[in-house]
Amino acid sequence: MSPTNHQVRLAARPSGLPRPSDWSFVEEPVPTPAAGEFVVAVSFMSVDPAMRGWMNAGASYIAPVEIGDVMRAGAVGRVTASEHPGFAVGDHVYGEFGVQEYALSDGKGVIKIDPSLAPPPTYLGTLGLSGLTAYFGLFDVAKLKDGDTVVVSGAAGAVGSVAGQIAKLKGCRVIGIAGSEEKCRWLTEDLGFDAAIDYKAQDVRAVLREAAPDRVDVYFDNVGGEILDAVLTRLARGARIVICGAVSQYNSTEGVRGPANYLSLLVARASMTGMVIFDYAPRFPQAMAELAGWLREGRLISREDVVEGGVSAFPDALLSLFAGENIGKLVLRVAPS
Amino acid sequence: MSPTNHQVRLAARPSGLPRPSDWSFVEEPVPTPAAGEFVVAVSFMSVDPAMRGWMNAGASYIAPVEIGDVMRAGAVGRVTASEHPGFAVGDHVYGEFGVQEYALSDGKGVIKIDPSLAPPPTYLGTLGLSGLTAYFGLFDVAKLKDGDTVVVSGAAGAVGSVAGQIAKLKGCRVIGIAGSEEKCRWLTEDLGFDAAIDYKAQDVRAVLREAAPDRVDVYFDNVGGEILDAVLTRLARGARIVICGAVSQYNSTEGVRGPANYLSLLVARASMTGMVIFDYAPRFPQAMAELAGWLREGRLISREDVVEGGVSAFPDALLSLFAGENIGKLVLRVAPS
Repeated sequence: MSPTNHQVRLAARPSGLPRPSDWSFVEEPVPTPAAGEFVVAVSFMSVDPAMRGWMNAGASYIAPVEIGDVMRAGAVGRVTASEHPGFAVGDHVYGEFGVQEYALSDGKGVIKIDPSLAPPPTYLGTLGLSGLTAYFGLFDVAKLKDGDTVVVSGAAGAVGSVAGQIAKLKGCRVIGIAGSEEKCRWLTEDLGFDAAIDYKAQDVRAVLREAAPDRVDVYFDNVGGEILDAVLTRLARGARIVICGAVSQYNSTEGVRGPANYLSLLVARASMTGMVIFDYAPRFPQAMAELAGWLREGRLISREDVVEGGVSAFPDALLSLFAGENIGKLVLRVAPS
Repeated sequence: MSPTNHQVRLAARPSGLPRPSDWSFVEEPVPTPAAGEFVVAVSFMSVDPAMRGWMNAGASYIAPVEIGDVMRAGAVGRVTASEHPGFAVGDHVYGEFGVQEYALSDGKGVIKIDPSLAPPPTYLGTLGLSGLTAYFGLFDVAKLKDGDTVVVSGAAGAVGSVAGQIAKLKGCRVIGIAGSEEKCRWLTEDLGFDAAIDYKAQDVRAVLREAAPDRVDVYFDNVGGEILDAVLTRLARGARIVICGAVSQYNSTEGVRGPANYLSLLVARASMTGMVIFDYAPRFPQAMAELAGWLREGRLISREDVVEGGVSAFPDALLSLFAGENIGKLVLRVAPS
């Protein structure tokens, strides 16, 4: 009896928040590797805001997931069968294995990870694309300088929590914007942020005026919408805004809300720059080593919010992300690691 | 009988387009210079879209004109009386002399101009802040490179017409966006633009697709609004957008329309950067010399649209600017030069 591979495939392109009918649940036999291939049993899967964009048709920074395809997802797991010279049974690996229990791979884009350095879910968060996005967004895009006042939105999320901590490490004043009192407490009490703003309960603009008396040099934006507009009113001369994402807009059925205060860029001689993390791939190893060093020294706290339930829990996990229910990196456990 | 100085002062802060009641017309005696001062008889005055912003209350890149003050304006003229060691009667000068016939000055921000090099109105346009804005916007903000595809909005205006010509001089493919067939013809037939789009008659996005098959590397934006959103859909990887102004938005009574397509910055890894020309003041002489050289060689065409009628014609001249009625630099003749 061959074991079964449970998959989640895209059944329809959503309008607004994905609905159950936008997914199909498929069972297939676990694949057998041909020459140059190997099979990975997925243990943990990354659940990302960007996934919502991949579900849309049309050109973006990455090709859309096609209807009928296994949903794209970054994941970690172990090699269970291999006909590939570079990967052996038992290897721990990270790759774009998709929302399924077993993935067939030719090794493209797959990297080996060391679970003795950090637990596998951390390779989806702080040591994965989330942490790397924070790293390159701050250093390469925002050109972070010692003493900068840095504002991070989505600050209790996977990217934002790392971005804020890195900025603190580098001697910056850091203000996080997040969506609950609990998240804000985590930012200031556990992660050492100088201040946190609960955008659901507080007036972002007013609190920012107090929390950033010298205005904002760097704004790392994960959310867009009203919060972007609020921060635009408080830019320091020469401010740099990193456009990393716009989670508040991804499920909008009325089109994206553009930043009405964008002319503050002119007044402040400021810039707003978009980034895509894949551009920095050649420097991932160096950045991962630095992030791992900070983790080891206890200067960087990594938090993963692990959802149980296997691949069939994926659709609800994605919705919980947009509801802002998680703190830290949202990860789905697919199999015991 | 002492001569009279006719002035236009700000009477009220406008909502939307300035109305006649927003201005007051005042007569004063021509001032007499004290020690360290001189008097300028204004010959030509610059009429700029930015003036609308100066009429609003609140912090911007420059202090607002206060109610009751002479309206701010750049102007050229001749010194008619002087108690200042640096300025002699007969000197031709440029300065922020305001909407009036005679200005008292202590010399701050005043530069001498050479009318044998170019006629005085040119010092308000191509050799003035308009031309300098084009120059530094392209070279310093957009970091113009040979072979770039450059799109300029407000392309038949004072800044845009110079920006497009400079980009052509530097080996770029240049597409202008303007508001009439006549303007577009001027851009392609007289100024050598590769293409021009009449945004009032054509679909900017569709025409841009043909005119910029390799997409847009540099967008010099003077207008904001729908045109900014259209160009955002056609950015090349690493594109640079210069936010110089947003003339389509200055008189909006419903607030500024933010660029809904700003997430294209992410997809294209592009940047949007604001500029204020005064930051480059230390390098004005070098840039003016270069612009003057191109003018002399006939490689740069300067066009001024001179409105007659003296200072009392200023309010209508400003409205004609927002109606898009002028081609080139809009200048008001105050007195025979």
